[in-house]
Amino acid sequence: MRPRVGVWLFGARGSVATTTVAGAAALAHGAPPAGVVTAQPAFAGAGLAPIESLVFGGHDVIDTPLAKQVERLIAGGVLPAGLNALITAELAAAERNLVVLPVAATQAEAIRRMAEDLRAFRLRNDLDHVVAINVASTEPPAEVGFTELPELRAALDAGTPLPASCAAALAAFEAGASFIDFTPSTSIRPPVIREWAVERGLPFGGQDAKTGETLVKTVLAPMFTARSLPVHAWSGTNLLGGGDGATLADPRAAESKNVSKERGLSDLLGPDVAGQVHIDYVDPLGDWKTAWDHVLFSGFLGVRMTLQFTWQGCDSALAAPLVLDLARLSALALQRGHVGSMPFLGFYFKDPVDSTEHSLTVQYDELVKWVQAC
Amino acid sequence: MRPRVGVWLFGARGSVATTTVAGAAALAHGAPPAGVVTAQPAFAGAGLAPIESLVFGGHDVIDTPLAKQVERLIAGGVLPAGLNALITAELAAAERNLVVLPVAATQAEAIRRMAEDLRAFRLRNDLDHVVAINVASTEPPAEVGFTELPELRAALDAGTPLPASCAAALAAFEAGASFIDFTPSTSIRPPVIREWAVERGLPFGGQDAKTGETLVKTVLAPMFTARSLPVHAWSGTNLLGGGDGATLADPRAAESKNVSKERGLSDLLGPDVAGQVHIDYVDPLGDWKTAWDHVLFSGFLGVRMTLQFTWQGCDSALAAPLVLDLARLSALALQRGHVGSMPFLGFYFKDPVDSTEHSLTVQYDELVKWVQAC
Amino acid sequence: MRPRVGVWLFGARGSVATTTVAGAAALAHGAPPAGVVTAQPAFAGAGLAPIESLVFGGHDVIDTPLAKQVERLIAGGVLPAGLNALITAELAAAERNLVVLPVAATQAEAIRRMAEDLRAFRLRNDLDHVVAINVASTEPPAEVGFTELPELRAALDAGTPLPASCAAALAAFEAGASFIDFTPSTSIRPPVIREWAVERGLPFGGQDAKTGETLVKTVLAPMFTARSLPVHAWSGTNLLGGGDGATLADPRAAESKNVSKERGLSDLLGPDVAGQVHIDYVDPLGDWKTAWDHVLFSGFLGVRMTLQFTWQGCDSALAAPLVLDLARLSALALQRGHVGSMPFLGFYFKDPVDSTEHSLTVQYDELVKWVQAC
Amino acid sequence: MRPRVGVWLFGARGSVATTTVAGAAALAHGAPPAGVVTAQPAFAGAGLAPIESLVFGGHDVIDTPLAKQVERLIAGGVLPAGLNALITAELAAAERNLVVLPVAATQAEAIRRMAEDLRAFRLRNDLDHVVAINVASTEPPAEVGFTELPELRAALDAGTPLPASCAAALAAFEAGASFIDFTPSTSIRPPVIREWAVERGLPFGGQDAKTGETLVKTVLAPMFTARSLPVHAWSGTNLLGGGDGATLADPRAAESKNVSKERGLSDLLGPDVAGQVHIDYVDPLGDWKTAWDHVLFSGFLGVRMTLQFTWQGCDSALAAPLVLDLARLSALALQRGHVGSMPFLGFYFKDPVDSTEHSLTVQYDELVKWVQAC
Ligand SMILES: NC(=O)c1ccc[n+]([C@@H]2O[C@H](COP(=O)([O-])OP(=O)(O)OC[C@H]3O[C@@H](n4cnc5c(N)ncnc54)[C@H](O)[C@@H]3O)[C@@H](O)[C@H]2O)c1
Ligand SMILES: NC(=O)c1ccc[n+]([C@@H]2O[C@H](COP(=O)([O-])OP(=O)(O)OC[C@H]3O[C@@H](n4cnc5c(N)ncnc54)[C@H](O)[C@@H]3O)[C@@H](O)[C@H]2O)c1
Ligand SMILES: NC(=O)c1ccc[n+]([C@@H]2O[C@H](COP(=O)([O-])OP(=O)(O)OC[C@H]3O[C@@H](n4cnc5c(N)ncnc54)[C@H](O)[C@@H]3O)[C@@H](O)[C@H]2O)c1
Ligand SMILES: NC(=O)c1ccc[n+]([C@@H]2O[C@H](COP(=O)([O-])OP(=O)(O)OC[C@H]3O[C@@H](n4cnc5c(N)ncnc54)[C@H](O)[C@@H]3O)[C@@H](O)[C@H]2O)c1
Ligand code: NA
Ligand code: NA
Repeated sequence: MRPRVGVWLFGARGSVATTTVAGAAALAHGAPPAGVVTAQPAFAGAGLAPIESLVFGGHDVIDTPLAKQVERLIAGGVLPAGLNALITAELAAAERNLVVLPVAATQAEAIRRMAEDLRAFRLRNDLDHVVAINVASTEPPAEVGFTELPELRAALDAGTPLPASCAAALAAFEAGASFIDFTPSTSIRPPVIREWAVERGLPFGGQDAKTGETLVKTVLAPMFTARSLPVHAWSGTNLLGGGDGATLADPRAAESKNVSKERGLSDLLGPDVAGQVHIDYVDPLGDWKTAWDHVLFSGFLGVRMTLQFTWQGCDSALAAPLVLDLARLSALALQRGHVGSMPFLGFYFKDPVDSTEHSLTVQYDELVKWVQAC
Repeated sequence: MRPRVGVWLFGARGSVATTTVAGAAALAHGAPPAGVVTAQPAFAGAGLAPIESLVFGGHDVIDTPLAKQVERLIAGGVLPAGLNALITAELAAAERNLVVLPVAATQAEAIRRMAEDLRAFRLRNDLDHVVAINVASTEPPAEVGFTELPELRAALDAGTPLPASCAAALAAFEAGASFIDFTPSTSIRPPVIREWAVERGLPFGGQDAKTGETLVKTVLAPMFTARSLPVHAWSGTNLLGGGDGATLADPRAAESKNVSKERGLSDLLGPDVAGQVHIDYVDPLGDWKTAWDHVLFSGFLGVRMTLQFTWQGCDSALAAPLVLDLARLSALALQRGHVGSMPFLGFYFKDPVDSTEHSLTVQYDELVKWVQAC
Repeated sequence: MRPRVGVWLFGARGSVATTTVAGAAALAHGAPPAGVVTAQPAFAGAGLAPIESLVFGGHDVIDTPLAKQVERLIAGGVLPAGLNALITAELAAAERNLVVLPVAATQAEAIRRMAEDLRAFRLRNDLDHVVAINVASTEPPAEVGFTELPELRAALDAGTPLPASCAAALAAFEAGASFIDFTPSTSIRPPVIREWAVERGLPFGGQDAKTGETLVKTVLAPMFTARSLPVHAWSGTNLLGGGDGATLADPRAAESKNVSKERGLSDLLGPDVAGQVHIDYVDPLGDWKTAWDHVLFSGFLGVRMTLQFTWQGCDSALAAPLVLDLARLSALALQRGHVGSMPFLGFYFKDPVDSTEHSLTVQYDELVKWVQAC
Repeated sequence: MRPRVGVWLFGARGSVATTTVAGAAALAHGAPPAGVVTAQPAFAGAGLAPIESLVFGGHDVIDTPLAKQVERLIAGGVLPAGLNALITAELAAAERNLVVLPVAATQAEAIRRMAEDLRAFRLRNDLDHVVAINVASTEPPAEVGFTELPELRAALDAGTPLPASCAAALAAFEAGASFIDFTPSTSIRPPVIREWAVERGLPFGGQDAKTGETLVKTVLAPMFTARSLPVHAWSGTNLLGGGDGATLADPRAAESKNVSKERGLSDLLGPDVAGQVHIDYVDPLGDWKTAWDHVLFSGFLGVRMTLQFTWQGCDSALAAPLVLDLARLSALALQRGHVGSMPFLGFYFKDPVDSTEHSLTVQYDELVKWVQAC
């Protein structure tokens, strides 16, 4: 019998989370799995949990009903008109598993309560595996000073030393869940957090899903390399509205995003490429993003040429099928007893954990190879 | 001792040919090999002939001096100012090996004389291998009715049954040279022509180098496939001036180009993608090409999105280093005794001989694998 | 008391017509008049008929209910979700005034019956003025040989010598209505048709509304002129789906469109500008149009530069408010007793009747001047 | 007899100044006056000084020979190859009139010496009018606290209270020259500086020439207004290299530019338009600028649409003919005895002195009207 898989979303009432839950329900009603990579034949024999069997739950700091978020996303053209009527039952089921993020005097206590929420979710829904995915608002970068677990444990008992995303990761590990960071937040960056996962024998992965401009970059940059065409400058401007846009309007939060966005380019083309990346909040764009990139390169004997592209995408509609993929793949990793980082998921991320490979094609091959192994 | 390699160019006074000859000379004077793929470390151990050792010759129907063509290309910004003074000796050397295309009463006779020109080139320059590359003007598509060699031989004795590109290929084979078609002309398309090459024990490859819009397409299309994002329409407009543009302003010649341009997309994405490709002659663009592509795709639950790109390239500066690559790789094939089609050169072509693989990354891996074999 | 104005649409069930009727109803319910030029303060004092007082009717060759067309346009994102429920009454009222285009043995008889339909519309709705606007499918170009009215009348009695758009214009004139051609069809091009209008003492105008690429062109081209920057080439590609796109997929219909599209550019920049305009039918684009234009110009001492633009518009949503404008302005012309062509409406058209002025700013000033006159 | 006009350039060895001097010489040798607005027939009867009669001089802080700057601009594709040989005499003549910017203990003394340089230029070249134009590097914005002339004079005697551009303007006025600011620096912004000009009976104008992105904006924004299409967001990214780019890489200098860039848009479309403007220094772009603008607007019933444009221009080649225009027009103003600001030159500027009119067409009409007056 197929194992029952629960998907715990941090940021469970946001656009990405809502589109994920609504989309899984739509697939169960027969919508084609556009954008779902694990629906490809190459992934068929690996025993991945069927999407329609996934059970959703999660934490958020707001309590707007999922059904209301679905309506907002329909009005914004992200979800198809009429979907809400079709999936009322599924939304209600997920709604019952959503919990307001606990607040406590010490972070140790907060993590304990969060882990408790995950365990309750597992019990109530009779789940074999729980996979946690962070789709909460992007945090500003943070330095985590602790290098040893005991030191960290003492600090957690005394106050709130960690950013929320690290607490989320630890709560997942405490509840025996895997953890994926879909965002560029701190979460599993500190080695001490990764150590905690390993101690509990659990897998983790991330970070910052590549769904738009960066996705395109990671196929174009290898083209220039393969053809020995020197790239002199790569400049980009991203215009976005929505909740994510509003968060990134704060330059400190945008910093996290920029760091992970830039990583791929310098890994792929080297450090000497000029050019900046801008992220602009443009409220009237709603849930849509437009990115313009300008690449200045040269050919034979130094003659200068350019490639420009404009990407106009609906971020949540690009992200949600990847969240479903990552849920299925994390569950497989749990089932296979994988412990520690999952660099074979680099295909999904701007800043892949424990990997400097950014070429999409190479990453795809690595992913398929892992899935088809054993 | 390294074998001496001669490069015979059909269309030897055109922009691509002139840029190739001038560029090889510039590299000999220390210019960096931008755009030359075989200059990458991955190709280092295979014993490829050094670029500065290549000897150039060829046929053309015009007799404008190479030095004059170089001046025109400098004025057009294709070649760097001042290059002509630097490479006078190399241009003069190549000029001595250029021959006006012979005309004769029967094509058998014409081919005989052309082959004679190639043999004289080999003798005069003491060459171990001669590789022929077709960089002549694109022809309109042509049907070649013959299926058996004797039948074809009889027709050649009686008149001029074949397009010029087929005659060029046969002349190369008669002279013991390999043949690469850099254009989408008929040349090696008819099976009977390929049979001739095999009979002579020679390798051939092509067709239609991918240097711009199509190059970009063959990395972007696999991205959509890898991410399971359905592509609904892919439309493209190419604006180009120059000699190639003037040729393609003839809708019959453009047809050959369009066929090879479209091949990759339908092989990569399937036949159901809407959209047309236009090639417009815009004389004032000179040797420059601008291509705009518009891709309509959808993500999760059918939401429509677009990717557009604009490519502004100097065609000859993109083509010339590839001609150098193909010369070196063909010489290696000759040396290795390879007979028949060279599908492992698909990396370079819009419509690769005996291959339906169009993904640039996969093609790159196939190329490197072949080079590093034995 | 304000005169009652009826608007007769040829092509009354098409996208533009449906958006016009639905949009007028939406404005009556308080939607802001975005895109309606005559809602600007400069038009306030002229006694234009209020939009909410306009009465709609028309001919079409199909009988799909308006309400169904509205649903289709909502699904396509042209009209806002929920609009159909709000405007049921207005749609039903217009539906009662829609008539299937009469067919008859001779065109004289067909025109008589069409005019009868217009007269019945006037009587039934107690209208002071009827203004007719052609928003039917674009026809291929047609030569009309007749130069004298009696000759034409005889031909109409004997068969069907004229394209449908000419018959529509004559039916309007027979019923005492003004006539505007929103399309590039033949309609009022033949002098003999214009003579007919003058004989009846009626105004006419057109042709081919400028709503997208051409609109942008007519502000950009004067910029180059004003700054003495020579334009060498102007190339354009239009991608469009929808009913209009399907019609223009026929190269003969597209010819009419191309002719009117090119007119402005050569009037504005002279005949020596290179470049082509393409219109591609891309079915999956639905009611949306994307146009890309590439302008090659030069500055001081001949240095080459480029301007490119991409326009992504919803054609019907751009057209409908202009139909409302033209209805109001035609009614004003009728009221003022204007006879013959209306060149002061050039602001709205790619190929303005009796005018070679294409600069949008100049046209705007001419329009306002006419409205504010007397 | 035509009056002899001298043109004094602050920043006389920069790219714009060098292109101006070299370009005027090229015109004298028969190059067509592309980009020179005052070469249009509309300006013919006004008695403007012929371009080939203009005499150039100026201040700079560097002493790189003009001839060397010309070579750099030829290498960068700004000036045509071979021009230097043609115009050696003209460059040498201008070189003799270039002076290193004087340095002094007090700004009063510096201004005195600068004015002395201008007077010497006038005497040496037997000039009737001297027009000064500031094409020096953009300064950061500066607050000038003085409101009364005596107060300012006292401060100048005591130290260096003003930014360099204000000193340049005062030196021009002291020498009886008109002053135009081609940059967004402080120069004539403070009312007390303008008072000084009026006291001396001299005209002044500016600021910040519109040559690229802003130029396009000031024809596109009025299009949206004329058509009643609400603009929700206008975002722009400017990539530029060269000396100007290097200066603007300093965020404080960029601030001046951004302020004048944004002025037009809010004057044209109102304050509620979202979106940011970025200026990125991209060194490998050399003297070229690429700007991408994204405009989000809506049509009928709120449906969202976009217009994007990409401008690829050579800044100095766009600027230089305007400097020639402004020199001729300033000389005409001097001749006509015009005193104070010249708002009728708004056609040339992003932030026109004493004018809030930004529509290019209206500005053109105002300019022609002034030229043709009297
Ligand atoms: N959509 C994409 O294509 C994409 C790609 C890469 C990364 N991401 C990242 O995914 C995340 C979600 O994006 P979105 O568009 O859904 O944003 P959103 O603003 O719509 O949703 C974020 C949700 O997180 C909640 N939240 C905030 N702090 C929390 C906390 N400490 N614990 C639990 N919930 C919390 C918010 O209340 C909100 O409901 C962002 O960090 C974004 O950068 C998205
Ligand atoms: N530049 C690129 O990026 C690129 C890419 C793919 C294919 N190609 C193809 O390469 C070819 C050359 O392009 P180009 O820009 O140099 O064009 P070009 O017009 O400058 O040169 C073509 C030359 O071929 C000569 N020629 C014509 N017929 C001939 C014949 N029968 N035998 C010998 N010579 C003949 C012409 O006289 C001319 O000198 C074209 O077919 C083009 O389509 C170029
Ligand atoms: N939408 C724009 O921005 C725009 C701009 C300029 C011109 N136009 C023109 O407006 C017209 C309408 O465009 P649309 O998008 O509504 O097209 P559409 O195809 O949706 O509608 C055209 C309608 O005309 C009807 N029709 C065909 N022949 C007819 C006839 N002889 N008499 C009466 N009706 C007839 C068709 O049945 C259809 O319902 C087209 O000609 C188009 O080129 C549109
Ligand atoms: N090129 C355009 O399209 C354009 C448009 C609008 C404004 N501008 C402005 O024109 C100016 C010139 O641009 P550029 O491309 O020539 O820049 P540039 O850097 O090439 O030249 C500026 C010159 O000014 C000199 N300079 C600096 N401080 C000075 C001072 N106090 N007095 C005299 N000279 C001084 C510098 O040494 C340099 O030679 C810039 O301020 C730029 O922003 C240019
Ligand atoms: Na093939
Ligand atoms: Na006209």
